[in-house]
Amino acid sequence: MSKIALPKMLESVSHDYDCVYYDETLGAMDDVEIVVGYPKDLIEYIANYPSLKLVHLVSAGFDYVDLETLKNHGVEVYNARGVYSIPIAEYIVGHLLSLTKQIPYYRDMQSQQLWEPQVSHELFGKSALFLGAGDIAQETSKRLRSFGVTTTGTNRKGNLIETFDQVYPLDSLNDLLPNYDIVINTLPANNHTIHILNKQTLSLMKKDAVLINIGRGNALCTDDLLEILDNHLDHVILDVFEEEPLPQNHPLWKHPKATLTPHCSGRSDAIDLRLFNLISKNIDAFIRKEPVENKII
Amino acid sequence: MSKIALPKMLESVSHDYDCVYYDETLGAMDDVEIVVGYPKDLIEYIANYPSLKLVHLVSAGFDYVDLETLKNHGVEVYNARGVYSIPIAEYIVGHLLSLTKQIPYYRDMQSQQLWEPQVSHELFGKSALFLGAGDIAQETSKRLRSFGVTTTGTNRKGNLIETFDQVYPLDSLNDLLPNYDIVINTLPANNHTIHILNKQTLSLMKKDAVLINIGRGNALCTDDLLEILDNHLDHVILDVFEEEPLPQNHPLWKHPKATLTPHCSGRSDAIDLRLFNLISKNIDAFIRKEPVENKII
Repeated sequence: MSKIALPKMLESVSHDYDCVYYDETLGAMDDVEIVVGYPKDLIEYIANYPSLKLVHLVSAGFDYVDLETLKNHGVEVYNARGVYSIPIAEYIVGHLLSLTKQIPYYRDMQSQQLWEPQVSHELFGKSALFLGAGDIAQETSKRLRSFGVTTTGTNRKGNLIETFDQVYPLDSLNDLLPNYDIVINTLPANNHTIHILNKQTLSLMKKDAVLINIGRGNALCTDDLLEILDNHLDHVILDVFEEEPLPQNHPLWKHPKATLTPHCSGRSDAIDLRLFNLISKNIDAFIRKEPVENKII
Repeated sequence: MSKIALPKMLESVSHDYDCVYYDETLGAMDDVEIVVGYPKDLIEYIANYPSLKLVHLVSAGFDYVDLETLKNHGVEVYNARGVYSIPIAEYIVGHLLSLTKQIPYYRDMQSQQLWEPQVSHELFGKSALFLGAGDIAQETSKRLRSFGVTTTGTNRKGNLIETFDQVYPLDSLNDLLPNYDIVINTLPANNHTIHILNKQTLSLMKKDAVLINIGRGNALCTDDLLEILDNHLDHVILDVFEEEPLPQNHPLWKHPKATLTPHCSGRSDAIDLRLFNLISKNIDAFIRKEPVENKII
């Protein structure tokens, strides 16, 4: 039976397998065939797993993984795509509604015990453009459409996915940006996406548009954003940053048009169970030599 | 041609009709057949409109209207049902997500420039019970279901409406209350709904449930709520109150489990147009002697 190294947080996965658990790092193990975790920490131990056949990431992103090295060792890599989509979709819609319904304003009024109604806005009738059309964008689109928001996804070829009202090729981004009230970056980090949101593309957006970045921090050029934000865009909602944690003295923290959160959009109390379900299903399939979901290499 | 008295805010409705506009009150007018507004202010002038045939409310609620007097004068009354449903549905889902995604916590962290992620919760998989099954409940249910929330409406006979996963008779409320994570009151004010949420019914709710009242303030007994809130319920979101404005020294203002807003959930910058569309359509139909929507008497 395959021996599996699992992070302590997934101890509940254990019962069916021959498992070892680890906290931060794991020593040399001759017989471990499957490792679940963040191979950012594991790559330096690669030589310690002569039997390693599969790495299952607990993250959806894999830009931090040395795929080349793992491939050279004949190791297959799978990611946790799909696990974080629901909380991230809820994060996006929640922050958009907080802005639209002026929830922070009313919270301030309550703290001062003031009865001061004002006219707020609606999501209804707005349009949203997604950079990307993967499962995060799809889960978000599904929810936004129930609010009467029209949604557009973008992918390499512009192949239609039913969850969106329409899908265009990502390379038509410059033509698309001027037409949307909401722009949401869900792209993974790679050579094509670094600084895809820069001074030129940001300036193409509607003057009163809202920008949301929950993809990767380096998709958005922070310096360019700061340069245009005073006179362009209505608001930005950012959960990821070029440098994380965002340095304490960074001017974005106090910008009146910025809502910042500490890379938390995918965290929820339902994640461990969802991760457990995916990983145990995939490990089962791998051991039985059946098709495994979410293969990267 | 019928003469119509319209509030100034709806001046754009004018072009097709013979109209007079008014700010707060309108003097005696022999030839006015249709009055649009809040007849709370108009009832004392009823004798001044010998030709009055129709009152079209700009509100959805009509508990403040002296229907008896209007009926005795042979006046038909229509309300603005449907006009406020979209912003109220957005308000409800927005406040629920703000709570679930801990948006106020992250706002506080941002104001202190602190990077402090924590695990938040999900709407996904929760259950919501609506007191009422009208258009506000339906618009909200539609949105909540896109988040994977199961929804239950209640109406007099429990007749199924497709927008909900299920509908039960309102008189089974006591059996229903223990089973829901979220309870949303959307009922209008009448003799059957006053204090329908009282110490006994509130105590039937799950200990960690969230209560939302956007119907009428007197559906919820505030004193009973205050009595149980410290030890029961996770949070209450209240937009309407038994006394409005809520007195400045009221203990609810500072209760850590309460989010209060000043009867603003139905206000949005899209309301005037929606109201204009409904009222002008109804006036057209009335003049042409065709069926008019939203008849009350």
